[in-house]
Amino acid sequence: MNGDAHLQVQRLADIEHLKIHGRTAGDLDPVTLFWTGSAIELNVQASGLWIEVESGYDQYESWISILINSVPVSRQMLNAGRHWICVFRGMNPDAVKNIRIVKEVQAMSGDPGCYLQFHAVRTDGAFLPIEAKPYRLEFIGDSITSGEGVIGAREELDWIPAWFSGVHNYTALTAEAVNADYRVISQSGWGVLTSWDNNPNGNIPDSYEQVCGLLTGERNEALGAHKVNDFASWQPDVVVVNLGTNDNGAFHSPEWVDEATGQRYKQRLKEDGSHHEEDLAAFEVAVVKFLVKLRQYNHSSHILWAYGMLGIPLMPAIYRAVDVYIQSTGDKKVSVFQLPDMTSETVGARTHPGLLAHQQTAQELSGYIKGLLSGS
Amino acid sequence: MNGDAHLQVQRLADIEHLKIHGRTAGDLDPVTLFWTGSAIELNVQASGLWIEVESGYDQYESWISILINSVPVSRQMLNAGRHWICVFRGMNPDAVKNIRIVKEVQAMSGDPGCYLQFHAVRTDGAFLPIEAKPYRLEFIGDSITSGEGVIGAREELDWIPAWFSGVHNYTALTAEAVNADYRVISQSGWGVLTSWDNNPNGNIPDSYEQVCGLLTGERNEALGAHKVNDFASWQPDVVVVNLGTNDNGAFHSPEWVDEATGQRYKQRLKEDGSHHEEDLAAFEVAVVKFLVKLRQYNHSSHILWAYGMLGIPLMPAIYRAVDVYIQSTGDKKVSVFQLPDMTSETVGARTHPGLLAHQQTAQELSGYIKGLLSGS
Amino acid sequence: MNGDAHLQVQRLADIEHLKIHGRTAGDLDPVTLFWTGSAIELNVQASGLWIEVESGYDQYESWISILINSVPVSRQMLNAGRHWICVFRGMNPDAVKNIRIVKEVQAMSGDPGCYLQFHAVRTDGAFLPIEAKPYRLEFIGDSITSGEGVIGAREELDWIPAWFSGVHNYTALTAEAVNADYRVISQSGWGVLTSWDNNPNGNIPDSYEQVCGLLTGERNEALGAHKVNDFASWQPDVVVVNLGTNDNGAFHSPEWVDEATGQRYKQRLKEDGSHHEEDLAAFEVAVVKFLVKLRQYNHSSHILWAYGMLGIPLMPAIYRAVDVYIQSTGDKKVSVFQLPDMTSETVGARTHPGLLAHQQTAQELSGYIKGLLSGS
Amino acid sequence: MNGDAHLQVQRLADIEHLKIHGRTAGDLDPVTLFWTGSAIELNVQASGLWIEVESGYDQYESWISILINSVPVSRQMLNAGRHWICVFRGMNPDAVKNIRIVKEVQAMSGDPGCYLQFHAVRTDGAFLPIEAKPYRLEFIGDSITSGEGVIGAREELDWIPAWFSGVHNYTALTAEAVNADYRVISQSGWGVLTSWDNNPNGNIPDSYEQVCGLLTGERNEALGAHKVNDFASWQPDVVVVNLGTNDNGAFHSPEWVDEATGQRYKQRLKEDGSHHEEDLAAFEVAVVKFLVKLRQYNHSSHILWAYGMLGIPLMPAIYRAVDVYIQSTGDKKVSVFQLPDMTSETVGARTHPGLLAHQQTAQELSGYIKGLLSGS
Repeated sequence: MNGDAHLQVQRLADIEHLKIHGRTAGDLDPVTLFWTGSAIELNVQASGLWIEVESGYDQYESWISILINSVPVSRQMLNAGRHWICVFRGMNPDAVKNIRIVKEVQAMSGDPGCYLQFHAVRTDGAFLPIEAKPYRLEFIGDSITSGEGVIGAREELDWIPAWFSGVHNYTALTAEAVNADYRVISQSGWGVLTSWDNNPNGNIPDSYEQVCGLLTGERNEALGAHKVNDFASWQPDVVVVNLGTNDNGAFHSPEWVDEATGQRYKQRLKEDGSHHEEDLAAFEVAVVKFLVKLRQYNHSSHILWAYGMLGIPLMPAIYRAVDVYIQSTGDKKVSVFQLPDMTSETVGARTHPGLLAHQQTAQELSGYIKGLLSGS
Repeated sequence: MNGDAHLQVQRLADIEHLKIHGRTAGDLDPVTLFWTGSAIELNVQASGLWIEVESGYDQYESWISILINSVPVSRQMLNAGRHWICVFRGMNPDAVKNIRIVKEVQAMSGDPGCYLQFHAVRTDGAFLPIEAKPYRLEFIGDSITSGEGVIGAREELDWIPAWFSGVHNYTALTAEAVNADYRVISQSGWGVLTSWDNNPNGNIPDSYEQVCGLLTGERNEALGAHKVNDFASWQPDVVVVNLGTNDNGAFHSPEWVDEATGQRYKQRLKEDGSHHEEDLAAFEVAVVKFLVKLRQYNHSSHILWAYGMLGIPLMPAIYRAVDVYIQSTGDKKVSVFQLPDMTSETVGARTHPGLLAHQQTAQELSGYIKGLLSGS
Repeated sequence: MNGDAHLQVQRLADIEHLKIHGRTAGDLDPVTLFWTGSAIELNVQASGLWIEVESGYDQYESWISILINSVPVSRQMLNAGRHWICVFRGMNPDAVKNIRIVKEVQAMSGDPGCYLQFHAVRTDGAFLPIEAKPYRLEFIGDSITSGEGVIGAREELDWIPAWFSGVHNYTALTAEAVNADYRVISQSGWGVLTSWDNNPNGNIPDSYEQVCGLLTGERNEALGAHKVNDFASWQPDVVVVNLGTNDNGAFHSPEWVDEATGQRYKQRLKEDGSHHEEDLAAFEVAVVKFLVKLRQYNHSSHILWAYGMLGIPLMPAIYRAVDVYIQSTGDKKVSVFQLPDMTSETVGARTHPGLLAHQQTAQELSGYIKGLLSGS
Repeated sequence: MNGDAHLQVQRLADIEHLKIHGRTAGDLDPVTLFWTGSAIELNVQASGLWIEVESGYDQYESWISILINSVPVSRQMLNAGRHWICVFRGMNPDAVKNIRIVKEVQAMSGDPGCYLQFHAVRTDGAFLPIEAKPYRLEFIGDSITSGEGVIGAREELDWIPAWFSGVHNYTALTAEAVNADYRVISQSGWGVLTSWDNNPNGNIPDSYEQVCGLLTGERNEALGAHKVNDFASWQPDVVVVNLGTNDNGAFHSPEWVDEATGQRYKQRLKEDGSHHEEDLAAFEVAVVKFLVKLRQYNHSSHILWAYGMLGIPLMPAIYRAVDVYIQSTGDKKVSVFQLPDMTSETVGARTHPGLLAHQQTAQELSGYIKGLLSGS
């Protein structure tokens, strides 16, 4: 740490003007980030800043991006262990820098050993207040919402954290266009009813009310992942639900067998290739139930089901389910929005939407959300 | 290094198929990279790869970018010391990945303590041959060619390594468009005759024949920075010289006084705001001399003077000097090309060209170079 | 007609290789074009070509565009009367030119005196066969589909034919992207159930089976506008219905009174600003009925309801109606597609979608249609 | 002229607020337009406007574009004879429309019978003053400046007026970006010294001082084409000279023989493919002489030699000539600017720059000109 010996360590818990993005269990010492797009934000008047990060994993390592004055400057894999990372150095000590350190990778339901924490900073300066954005958005989704494939060459096939991005996916871009703070709840492969492979446990709704309920392992439990989220502290103006892509995948995937019970799960296609009515109905019931739950925790938010970057086969079912919800509850602050389809020009890694697809989605989705927020 | 315990360490010097981009003094144990855009390239068939890097600095730290299959995946500041950095992990061990680890920051003439070395890799796989590109380009320039301002918000004013980029500047983009290997020789603030502040030592030509002659300090000398470059081993098809922007700056800056001798240096403007003829002539002589030196070391390369991203006030002088060189030598493999001016839409950090400006320059410059290479 | 004295007149009815785009009543002597996008197409091997056009109007004049080898070269208002228009002259007589003369303006329900006919050509060459495109598309819509506002400055407010375009609207652009012949049935202000001002006569479905049933006046009747269209001769692969924008407008417009009967018509909003359920239901019934009629005349076409360039307030109702239709008929070759919303960057004249909006719609819509046509 | 019977005829010569763009011989009854981009401009508060045009030709007919409120609405070939053309009709009589009727085709040195005149208008409204733009530009050039190839398919090979455009070429686009009135002096195939085929008569400088000196025939002479232009009435801020492309072509074309004298003309290449020094010197002398003439008629204009959309082989010679001019005259208001090269993506008809190439040139050229005009 050449030339940085004069910096003073401060625990994050001791910083008055610390802004945390994304759900947490409340503990600040250290700060644990669970979801992609979760972040620590600071306004710092200093010549240099280091941050002490702690990362662990059994299989899937964490990545972070560092934004200085809203521009991504650094993106790196985090080795296991506790490290000091230099955020900036050698800058004008009188100028205030806005710093965001963003989790680039989704919560990892498949790796009980994966966690990411921030302990302290080391700086020669002071921290200033951070203005809240005028709006709040919450995004709920699957691999698309996790930014899977935003990074990496088109030929990449490995399922690894490197190809995920929180700062370049449509959630970040939409929030920026709308001028909103935002949170993300997402998991690759998961759906409303089941995951892509018919596993009924791979659904987002069941653990929605928990801080990060899809995480497993003792450490995550101890970190508060399974605690009930403090919804009162952060109510979004709009909840964007981008689910359904994997529910459709389940119709095209083999059955899933619960090894404990022997029970078999399968969303069926009929001989003519269309969705089986019973299974489609089960999906629609799941959508309705999730809307009910979302409303329970988000009293006055507009709930927006946004679907379509990888096709719209379940759109009629989504519209039906939303209709049923509205008719049965009288709740009219719910609507549906079709997202633009990925094309051969906008595809990214792992045949997932690339940066151009996320930019196009953000442009169209933010236009619609601006309409909602302006009441038009 | 969870899950990576089975990886085997190999020194870089022991790898048969190691490709190094950029000038070196020849030593492979460790490999020292001097210039921006310099890189280590590997084709590796493995599930994981780590690299051992050593970095030092008194003031200006090094940054690297990691490209996997030609796509930038990671970009990070390097702390002082010797560290293992994970390049990738958890990938299909049978697939071959093309890896480039690229120096993002220019050689630092102002920091004798700055150096960057690579010692070894740790992997579970094998290294395969790397095909040479059909062409070779060498770029010689100043801050523009160093990619200063490509990264960072427009309001950034600090002169720090973070705002430099080797992989997103016009040199990398032009080489990619032309399908060429490339090298960069560049220094912010320097010119053909003097630096922007009239310092006659801030000229690129004087040390062109050395591996990285503008570096100072004992360590750099020991690393071979002042050795004569092995030109025979790498002859470019085209040498692009992007100098003159700081030579013009000198006309608009205060004089520089050599504290040792008391001698004063100043490129003068006349009362009407035009360049003083004598000083302009000195600039032109410097251009001619540099062309002579470039030809001495690059026997059959086309030499292309490319100038203009921050205005073209010295273009008439450059054309005159190139004319004088051609008339006096009969050497016709020299030409001049105007680069597109930066605009308010394409500006980056530190009022330097941003990514859009570098992309536009690469598009136009690569079109011209393709014409040269095809002999049209 | 300097230098063109050697050209020979031929009646269109006598040309073997004449291709007519758009519905006609069958008569070729002269050829009458009714709808926007309707066209005469010729492959002509000649040095010059003139065409004899006849145009009439009480209020709204006709405009045509001339395309040579698929590129728009000329666009002009047609004065009333019978005129010879030079299509091209002075060209290589041996080269074959593809010529399309396209009606730029919609059928004018409000002007019984408006008509457009083509009588003859004058040329020194021969006509060659015209290959059919592999697909056929039919577009049914309102002002958006008529290309209203594609031409003209943003401040234009007059409702005049000059601001309409058949060759630059999304129908032409989509057909080109899909490589399809196409037809358009459209009328500004009209809907499925009523026009924007609650007039129940302003609906497209009632006269769909007629060649151009919305035209009035004796001349148009004599020209066959009210004859039943010959559906057997031209069955589209996809019928795109872009209606609903004016049906929503009716909810926000004053009632319409039938002066003959005194009957009042009004699609009502409720106090909370939402659509009155009864009136929404009437709209949905109209959608279902129209789908039934479309299927009656288009036996194996995919029917695609495409909606959204000026907002999506009726999308839930459209999805419901399409669902009802599918459930009650078992006909699954029907789907719904949301079009991208116009933005402040893509608006054209008369606050209608401009060229950029039509290009974006064509890009997304053609992607979806390609999926339908490939069976994916 | 249905519904337009109430319009009143006015001769153009009687309209107080008539603005004419482009050089004229001064006569307003009728107005004769010679050069491409020349135009009649009116601010008219009326419901309708017709204009009486007279056009003649032996070989190359005239085309015009009509712009309403700066947007091109109509583009058409003009048949020989005298005709009334409807500019607009049916518009709000209280709104003021800005109208420009623009000559789309260059003056035709090869057709003594070609002319274009405007006699009168017919309207129900009044004409209002037209504000002058803050700047004035004059463009002097060849086929590029005549917009040859801006219209038409890439495969077009015929040399016909249809492929030319005055309103979509870089002169109009640059003037719009700079907010300037502008004039064009241009001729396809011509150069500074000779035309592309070595004809010494095909040079622009010789007749620069005449209104439109390159026209031939008694009619054009009677119309004042050979009169000395009234330079005092319109002095440009910047004269842009885009010549040299055909002068280079002459080096690659067969000799031209003056049939009257038997004299042979040929710009020679040497065996190594480079320009013969003597012939290059002759070109440079021609450039210097033209600069002297330009200064004679444009006392305080900046003279800008802009060159490069189809390659830059003569750029060194142009720089040398401009240097010689500056050194010998002390006139420093002269500079050189390289234009961006056309690419395979931006090519238009007849392997000439297409619309995209003209847009790119206008973007870069207008940036440079704005710098000149702001004195920076």
